[in-house]
Amino acid sequence: MADIAKIIDEIKKGVAEIIGEEQVVELVKRYYEKGENFYVKAGFDPTAPDLHLGHSVVLTKMAFLQKHGAIVQFLIGDFTGQIGDPSGKSATRKKLDKETVAKNAKTYEDQVFKILDPKKTVIMFNSKWCNELGAAGIVELASTFPVARMLERDDFEKRFKAGSSISISEFLYPLLQGYDSVAMKCDIEMGGTDQKFNLLMGRTLQRIYNIGKEQAVIMMPLLEGLDGVNKMSKSLGNYIGVTDNANDMFGKILSISDDLMWRYYELLSDKSVDEIKSLKDDVDSGKAHPKAVKEALALEITARYHGESVANEAKAEFDRVHTQNQIPAELEEFNLKAPVWIVEALVHCKLSSTNSQARRDISANAVSIDQKKISDEQLKLGVGEYILQVGKRKFAKLKVVDGV
Amino acid sequence: MADIAKIIDEIKKGVAEIIGEEQVVELVKRYYEKGENFYVKAGFDPTAPDLHLGHSVVLTKMAFLQKHGAIVQFLIGDFTGQIGDPSGKSATRKKLDKETVAKNAKTYEDQVFKILDPKKTVIMFNSKWCNELGAAGIVELASTFPVARMLERDDFEKRFKAGSSISISEFLYPLLQGYDSVAMKCDIEMGGTDQKFNLLMGRTLQRIYNIGKEQAVIMMPLLEGLDGVNKMSKSLGNYIGVTDNANDMFGKILSISDDLMWRYYELLSDKSVDEIKSLKDDVDSGKAHPKAVKEALALEITARYHGESVANEAKAEFDRVHTQNQIPAELEEFNLKAPVWIVEALVHCKLSSTNSQARRDISANAVSIDQKKISDEQLKLGVGEYILQVGKRKFAKLKVVDGV
Repeated sequence: MADIAKIIDEIKKGVAEIIGEEQVVELVKRYYEKGENFYVKAGFDPTAPDLHLGHSVVLTKMAFLQKHGAIVQFLIGDFTGQIGDPSGKSATRKKLDKETVAKNAKTYEDQVFKILDPKKTVIMFNSKWCNELGAAGIVELASTFPVARMLERDDFEKRFKAGSSISISEFLYPLLQGYDSVAMKCDIEMGGTDQKFNLLMGRTLQRIYNIGKEQAVIMMPLLEGLDGVNKMSKSLGNYIGVTDNANDMFGKILSISDDLMWRYYELLSDKSVDEIKSLKDDVDSGKAHPKAVKEALALEITARYHGESVANEAKAEFDRVHTQNQIPAELEEFNLKAPVWIVEALVHCKLSSTNSQARRDISANAVSIDQKKISDEQLKLGVGEYILQVGKRKFAKLKVVDGV
Repeated sequence: MADIAKIIDEIKKGVAEIIGEEQVVELVKRYYEKGENFYVKAGFDPTAPDLHLGHSVVLTKMAFLQKHGAIVQFLIGDFTGQIGDPSGKSATRKKLDKETVAKNAKTYEDQVFKILDPKKTVIMFNSKWCNELGAAGIVELASTFPVARMLERDDFEKRFKAGSSISISEFLYPLLQGYDSVAMKCDIEMGGTDQKFNLLMGRTLQRIYNIGKEQAVIMMPLLEGLDGVNKMSKSLGNYIGVTDNANDMFGKILSISDDLMWRYYELLSDKSVDEIKSLKDDVDSGKAHPKAVKEALALEITARYHGESVANEAKAEFDRVHTQNQIPAELEEFNLKAPVWIVEALVHCKLSSTNSQARRDISANAVSIDQKKISDEQLKLGVGEYILQVGKRKFAKLKVVDGV
């Protein structure tokens, strides 16, 4: 028999807030006791199927739920996607044609089935039931909710107080998103904490439309980006794209701080609560090095999107390039007139203390020009720019100008 | 050639506000120059086809416009009629079925064609184009207008500030009413001053939907009811119904104050600006009695709904009942023990100063009991209540009680 309490603990890992936790417990129980599945909805915008790890937080949680009875209803908001432009200046609005929606849906599938189990996932489009509502249905839907309560939504309240325009169609958005839950008859809806108002709307409307259930809501926190401060977003450039190549993905994850690493473990890794706790203990006691733990995370995430062997290659490549041959971003610059004898250059650039020390460095194979080792101590440098390096850590930039 | 300026003056008779007066001038001109008709819209609620003279103000103006080129678009808001309940408590809403709408429309026709020219009137139903809008069309419509500007509408503003609930569907009402003007391509919309916000919405939306015209708006004042203070309304009981019988209609109009009479002349009569001015001058100079002028108004209005001969009968009946034999509402009351001699009764009730005066009054045929003349000066009154009258103005109520 499954340990329901333990599964619930794992479901709650990293979660920001659950509304209706007792319902979630009930759903998982019923799955293990009677084999009944339950339905977990998450909505996605049809216009931007270019996911980053921030989006994957919800998907990762849903993938976990799939192991314990969930059928994921992956909702592409092709109807609601038409709403959202707050300008209200024009009655003509760019609509996505069917082909574009279908193409975007395909891209979504390519991306999300790296995380979700395709056999336990249904792709849905809300244009189906939204169009069926018709004009009268929309009016009826709009009659269920008061203006004042809509204006309590954080962003609406701020914009209203600031005097910036909110078009009336924007009020229809949360209602339609809530109506999706009515039409889909989902048991749980998932989303970010920033979606709380809209997620609760689904619960409210399921009650008003009297469909015999009121969805639970699981809210995931917004993942911080690489900077560890701002939420991960394309526009801030602090993101790791789901389609990033393996080398970039691995390198970016390794670049995060140790603190952020634990956050990513919690929200992105498949490791259990206990496993993460044990890793933490090992780092705290000095039994494990933080960098090794971070590499393990980078490997796990990279392997999820690119497979294990490509992830391992990415790690090897990273070690080769970054650990062995790092050139500092800022180099001291020097100028000399051509032609320049290499020994003279090394002394001038303070990389070797004397001419004889420079000769010894060259014969010890410790001198590189533009990251290539040299062995000829008679070498002459012509006009140009050179990165000179002695040993692992001493660098200089030398500019050789026309001697005439 | 028609005197356009004079027609415009008559159009402006009694009007509260015109927006786009120059357009109205242009439309009338074009009719007289090129024979082109123009379209005048007015919207009516499908649920209450029980009109009173307050409603007829707009219809009377439209009837005048029909004489100068207007085709009236009589709009029955069978779609928008579903909106309006501000409670937002229930998603289920009472819809009018097609038969009821058709029946109500027939009733409207019976009533409004007493005023409007049926050959220059088109009955329209907004469910046609509203349903065609579909869910996406409604969302698009809602995107044209900002929340903050909607909340500027007087009643919304008051309710919002007072914290009373406004359902989001109520925001759709002015938009749909405005969209009617887009679909109907009307040149002028008519309504009461309380409809200003919604009437201007039609103008705005015709511009946004780019149909090549922006409707002018003619607003009529709200007609005061019989009390001369509050607007005419069924719930206040101060109304004259279009279906009132001829006697009631004639009598009610005669009951209004002289001031209100001029207001009714302006807003309900077909008399021209000059004719009304001349009537006023006659009353002011003593050449005409206000009551005669009021009777003329009562005759005109009653004839409009019941025909001239029925109106004349109503006038005759009114004269018979009310002018000849008016019993004051409040009578002094007296008590005597049965049996009572009529002469004694007249003196006791202070209708005759002495017994001999009472005898003279009886023989002069000036005494009535319960509005019936008597001639027997020996008459005895038994137990009961009697209205005693001497001459035209002296009345008393006599209660004769058991004498034992």
